[in-house]
Amino acid sequence: MVLYDSGNTNIKRYEDGRVTYVDDFDVHESFYYVNVNPKIKDFKNGIDLAPYFKFQTDYKGMGIDRIAACYSIEDGVIVDAGSAITVDIMTSGFHSGGFIMPGIGAYKESFANISTALIFNIDKDINLKILPQNTHEALNFATFKAPYLMIKEVAIKKKIYFCGGDGIFFSHFFKNSVYEKNLVFEGMKKVIKEKLC
Amino acid sequence: MVLYDSGNTNIKRYEDGRVTYVDDFDVHESFYYVNVNPKIKDFKNGIDLAPYFKFQTDYKGMGIDRIAACYSIEDGVIVDAGSAITVDIMTSGFHSGGFIMPGIGAYKESFANISTALIFNIDKDINLKILPQNTHEALNFATFKAPYLMIKEVAIKKKIYFCGGDGIFFSHFFKNSVYEKNLVFEGMKKVIKEKLC
Repeated sequence: MVLYDSGNTNIKRYEDGRVTYVDDFDVHESFYYVNVNPKIKDFKNGIDLAPYFKFQTDYKGMGIDRIAACYSIEDGVIVDAGSAITVDIMTSGFHSGGFIMPGIGAYKESFANISTALIFNIDKDINLKILPQNTHEALNFATFKAPYLMIKEVAIKKKIYFCGGDGIFFSHFFKNSVYEKNLVFEGMKKVIKEKLC
Repeated sequence: MVLYDSGNTNIKRYEDGRVTYVDDFDVHESFYYVNVNPKIKDFKNGIDLAPYFKFQTDYKGMGIDRIAACYSIEDGVIVDAGSAITVDIMTSGFHSGGFIMPGIGAYKESFANISTALIFNIDKDINLKILPQNTHEALNFATFKAPYLMIKEVAIKKKIYFCGGDGIFFSHFFKNSVYEKNLVFEGMKKVIKEKLC
């Protein structure tokens, strides 16, 4: 069974637990997919899983990748830290809301657009408890601490499930957390098992 | 006495308590200035106040506008909310550190750069206590709540002094805060009084 997760900046292909980044869908094979990129039009031989998710939420317009990531979690906070960072809260199988932040790379780009004086290198070896004492620290501190505080506030007494490229990094800041890189594919497999097998 | 505060995106001219936004320095008048824009070269008839600030800090490379804004505050958190949001902490006349976040406009631009699906309108009528239930709320929530939490954490038992274009908006979220739009100019006036009168 081949699965594709087509996001804003890249496409991931999943087969037998193995994930690869690809440039496009392979339209010569059969596959299931979720897609949030409006630019992609050709899904020949692919089955869109979007209509099959019966997801309990009052949230309007939630991306299908976010729904898939939440779908296998009954209770917890789901954080997909990629080009954007999405944060969703599941309580007894109900999605009670969520929010979207710029990802780490977007912060870096954002600072560079404000001023050439704010061009900096991402430095993941940052201490979020010590007040910055130079521009490099000041920019890295905000880049990591803003998402950290936003996640912390909604994760009181909840387990946090991280996925996405920067998920493993953020998971180090939270004791009650796990990094499950294939959360979207787990949700896709669950819905296939429920509705299409 | 004419003062100029030249920032990353605009130049402010101050005279007799009145502030106007201008395109450039008026090199035909005498003036005092602080400047952080590396593109500006011609300061004829202007006196750069940067060398006169004797500012107690271990922070390296702090913008002179930030120093000026902090200079008139003995104790407190100084937040300049403009194209970037700078946050600085003063304790008994000593600057103990600070950090820099993207401003509200930079967040909006940052989301738009990630995906066309994340283009949204800034909506200052946002409730930061209620979990978002759609994309518009999800983006506005992060845009305002991330800076809010970052400021809140360093402002425990401290008065907050807001300045900058979005300072008045953020000041509404904090009881122990004031909006002092001319904080940079107040610092400039203080150093002139101390060193140049």
